[in-house]
Amino acid sequence: MDTVNVLLIECSDELGIIARVTTVLTNHKLNMVEFHEFADEDTNQFYLRTGVTGTLDKAKVEADLKAILPSNANFRFVENRMKKVVIMVTKENHCLGDLLLRNYTKNMDMEILAVIGNHPDCKELTEKFNIPWFEISHKDIERSEHERLITEKIKELKPDFILLAKFLRILSPEFVAEFPNKIINIHHSFLPSFIGANPYRQAYNRGVKIIGATAHFVNNDLDEGPIIYQDVIRVDHSHSAKEMSRAGKDVEKGVFTKGIKLVLKDRVFVKNNRTIVFS
Amino acid sequence: MDTVNVLLIECSDELGIIARVTTVLTNHKLNMVEFHEFADEDTNQFYLRTGVTGTLDKAKVEADLKAILPSNANFRFVENRMKKVVIMVTKENHCLGDLLLRNYTKNMDMEILAVIGNHPDCKELTEKFNIPWFEISHKDIERSEHERLITEKIKELKPDFILLAKFLRILSPEFVAEFPNKIINIHHSFLPSFIGANPYRQAYNRGVKIIGATAHFVNNDLDEGPIIYQDVIRVDHSHSAKEMSRAGKDVEKGVFTKGIKLVLKDRVFVKNNRTIVFS
Amino acid sequence: MDTVNVLLIECSDELGIIARVTTVLTNHKLNMVEFHEFADEDTNQFYLRTGVTGTLDKAKVEADLKAILPSNANFRFVENRMKKVVIMVTKENHCLGDLLLRNYTKNMDMEILAVIGNHPDCKELTEKFNIPWFEISHKDIERSEHERLITEKIKELKPDFILLAKFLRILSPEFVAEFPNKIINIHHSFLPSFIGANPYRQAYNRGVKIIGATAHFVNNDLDEGPIIYQDVIRVDHSHSAKEMSRAGKDVEKGVFTKGIKLVLKDRVFVKNNRTIVFS
Amino acid sequence: MDTVNVLLIECSDELGIIARVTTVLTNHKLNMVEFHEFADEDTNQFYLRTGVTGTLDKAKVEADLKAILPSNANFRFVENRMKKVVIMVTKENHCLGDLLLRNYTKNMDMEILAVIGNHPDCKELTEKFNIPWFEISHKDIERSEHERLITEKIKELKPDFILLAKFLRILSPEFVAEFPNKIINIHHSFLPSFIGANPYRQAYNRGVKIIGATAHFVNNDLDEGPIIYQDVIRVDHSHSAKEMSRAGKDVEKGVFTKGIKLVLKDRVFVKNNRTIVFS
Repeated sequence: MDTVNVLLIECSDELGIIARVTTVLTNHKLNMVEFHEFADEDTNQFYLRTGVTGTLDKAKVEADLKAILPSNANFRFVENRMKKVVIMVTKENHCLGDLLLRNYTKNMDMEILAVIGNHPDCKELTEKFNIPWFEISHKDIERSEHERLITEKIKELKPDFILLAKFLRILSPEFVAEFPNKIINIHHSFLPSFIGANPYRQAYNRGVKIIGATAHFVNNDLDEGPIIYQDVIRVDHSHSAKEMSRAGKDVEKGVFTKGIKLVLKDRVFVKNNRTIVFS
Repeated sequence: MDTVNVLLIECSDELGIIARVTTVLTNHKLNMVEFHEFADEDTNQFYLRTGVTGTLDKAKVEADLKAILPSNANFRFVENRMKKVVIMVTKENHCLGDLLLRNYTKNMDMEILAVIGNHPDCKELTEKFNIPWFEISHKDIERSEHERLITEKIKELKPDFILLAKFLRILSPEFVAEFPNKIINIHHSFLPSFIGANPYRQAYNRGVKIIGATAHFVNNDLDEGPIIYQDVIRVDHSHSAKEMSRAGKDVEKGVFTKGIKLVLKDRVFVKNNRTIVFS
Repeated sequence: MDTVNVLLIECSDELGIIARVTTVLTNHKLNMVEFHEFADEDTNQFYLRTGVTGTLDKAKVEADLKAILPSNANFRFVENRMKKVVIMVTKENHCLGDLLLRNYTKNMDMEILAVIGNHPDCKELTEKFNIPWFEISHKDIERSEHERLITEKIKELKPDFILLAKFLRILSPEFVAEFPNKIINIHHSFLPSFIGANPYRQAYNRGVKIIGATAHFVNNDLDEGPIIYQDVIRVDHSHSAKEMSRAGKDVEKGVFTKGIKLVLKDRVFVKNNRTIVFS
Repeated sequence: MDTVNVLLIECSDELGIIARVTTVLTNHKLNMVEFHEFADEDTNQFYLRTGVTGTLDKAKVEADLKAILPSNANFRFVENRMKKVVIMVTKENHCLGDLLLRNYTKNMDMEILAVIGNHPDCKELTEKFNIPWFEISHKDIERSEHERLITEKIKELKPDFILLAKFLRILSPEFVAEFPNKIINIHHSFLPSFIGANPYRQAYNRGVKIIGATAHFVNNDLDEGPIIYQDVIRVDHSHSAKEMSRAGKDVEKGVFTKGIKLVLKDRVFVKNNRTIVFS
């Protein structure tokens, strides 16, 4: 199969954009193998994602695209490479384990640069898979200092994305602002329900018949960023809050992995608090 | 197939209840064809539902059960008959239509005594199926007077259950208190998310990837009663709030019907704000 | 909202088709509001579906498209109108009822021209909704004569699609050949499992944990045409074959309706025994 | 929480069994914490599973149960311990990996005694988790000799269950007969569809919209044993057979794990080619 490069465009919508873009691609003898677009009537914003095969002279094609796109356009060809990620954890290892295993079996298009934990619990599992482990404890230091140490490590590692695989510390707006649309979190609930502590106890008390999980980007507020993917499972009266929690872990793991896959394939655009997902 | 009578028991939990109950049933030569029980550790409450076949001398069996159950026990044999329901509507007819059709095709164990509407919109559809239609407008009268008229009509009709098939008026605590655990509502959202007006607009703004619906009993607060059944469907960025609403109607209809079926079969116990559902 | 006309193209794949098509549309000041394409590597076939808004001079645009498309291209603008359908039934009315109700509530983009039954069972329900009913019994006549009478009636009615809403007679290849890709059937099973009689008894005997239904076009063999849509529900050991059948009816109804909606919106291309569905 | 012992009973159905069994348990001051029963009308067979808490004098309770159960009754208390399993693999490691990981995180009630492979591919992953690895190649020896070597090893290890985590060799009836209702397989398809080689190519050719997987016991024929659990995922025209296969691996993994969990918890009875699953 030919190499596929992915073109991403976001700009204000206007008549003829698709024709102009595809004409540029055709002029450069690039063949489109998958093509998604969305024109959002609410915001008058246009989004396009397409894979192209053929010899790509990036500088020339980008120059031609620049000439025919609105001046506010944000566009780029995504290099055809594995994305680099750093995983952050606290104690639970079910989401981490799934990522390590899929990485080992080459099931996801990512390279795990390192796992950072604020507790030692996930060290052993991480090192089984020969992934560098960095323990940055929050004990006896201020939050700002803790985050400074983490930021330093992340900037040294230069990942494309930071995956919060059950990292249970609240992140400050300053930390989050360093990595816009780069931090992906798994929320142990079906947002926007049950924000905050003990979601499964809340769900139990409310007697819900379905519980879910949400993968989302992190912006200011840990649980409130743009939603990437969600899924649910059925529960019933016989599930205690603890059993709901256990059942919830499988759906968390599946939702996190699926959400990350979408992001790794550059299928997710973010606009305000919403995502456009081309899947 | 033999006639099946259903025995329902709710009482405080203690050692040997199942043995004592089933021994009574066996002594009366009643065969159990389906048997569900649940002992709730949180509340120390015990729930049992079983179908029995064989000749039932109700008075004698009930006397024997009374002798062996805790004094706080609430138990009864449910007569083997169709439940009687009154449906209340405002303008939308998708939930009503499904119920009328299933009633016509004898798909549900219910007899629809009447449909009450506060607008004329659903009259034609109701009368196609030869179901009595009562229009009780809320116009130009006080809420209390409106509810008094509805209550009067319902008390005259004597239904087992009142089905709010998109009845969009808020009901007063006084009205609700007249019919405890007898009013079933379909909520156009996945509770506890998006309570209140315009849930689909709320869902759209939040960029959710899944929307749902909830069938629940109505107690004081319209959207907050014990949940009977829930289901969800996937949506994406291309759904406008209006399209989410349209997609939501199918899931509303399905959830409402399924929830009602569970109640009609006496499969739902209510305790505080939770349900125990034996399905 | 503006009127949307839908352009459908099917042709052999080659470099630049998307650019040429969208340039033609842009030249005619047509704005694309939804755009799906698929290039099938297996067959080298290209499929495109897009909605366009703006003043459509169909003859001129079609001439321009003809000039730039491969000579084997099959393309057309779909008139922006309700599709006309004829429904065929035998005795069961659950699929018919759902279609009549959705038609009444204007939930589907179709006009039901008539219902044809080979038994009288569905007459009453059909006429409740003021839809013409034609009873064409198969009794005492040869299959070929029965089909001749049905064909005659259908040709007189001129529907876009023929919906087999539990029409249980096997159709001859001759009948089917009269209406290529126009007959939609609901199969009471998850194809390709359990083809033939008594699928729920087969499913019960096999102890399956999931049952499904399939909406498909009918070509030569009743159960084997291109699949449009499928869905499933869970069952367990406590379901008798009869209860599986009852549970199956809801999934049949939902799958049939969903499949028909896709076809009515011109979202389904057929190639050999497969469909391309742009949903 | 108290220790829970599980009582399993299978016998012919007759009036009063539940009363007699529960009376025995109550006489011995055993409290039932979960109770499931099923009387199969087709076979007149009765199944019961209940957890009991309290001091269990197994010999005495069993003697009392023997006295009141039909002579053909098969009953036992399941020791409250982890089940021992041996996993068999060929080359693919997605199902194995999930089991190793869940075993490591103590998510499943099992102890993995060993992994047996007929290829070396899964050795590295197995040994990461410090699980004994035995490579028993089928090369250059007869099938009967290969199976003899495997049987010898299994008999030496004495597992409760043998998990075929993508073991792709056909097993002889002789091998299977050695371990009745003890071998669990994951079938890469939604049985009974697409039995045999290349199920995803078959599914692709048929243009299905849903693919699934099946966990089942192995009896004579590899793909035809009693079904324990099934699940499905949606696919569409854009999935190549290879992509279907990749998507299928996740559902295979999930179904296998879920099916094994049900068996490990003694929730599955087998009768002829069907299972009774109390979940």
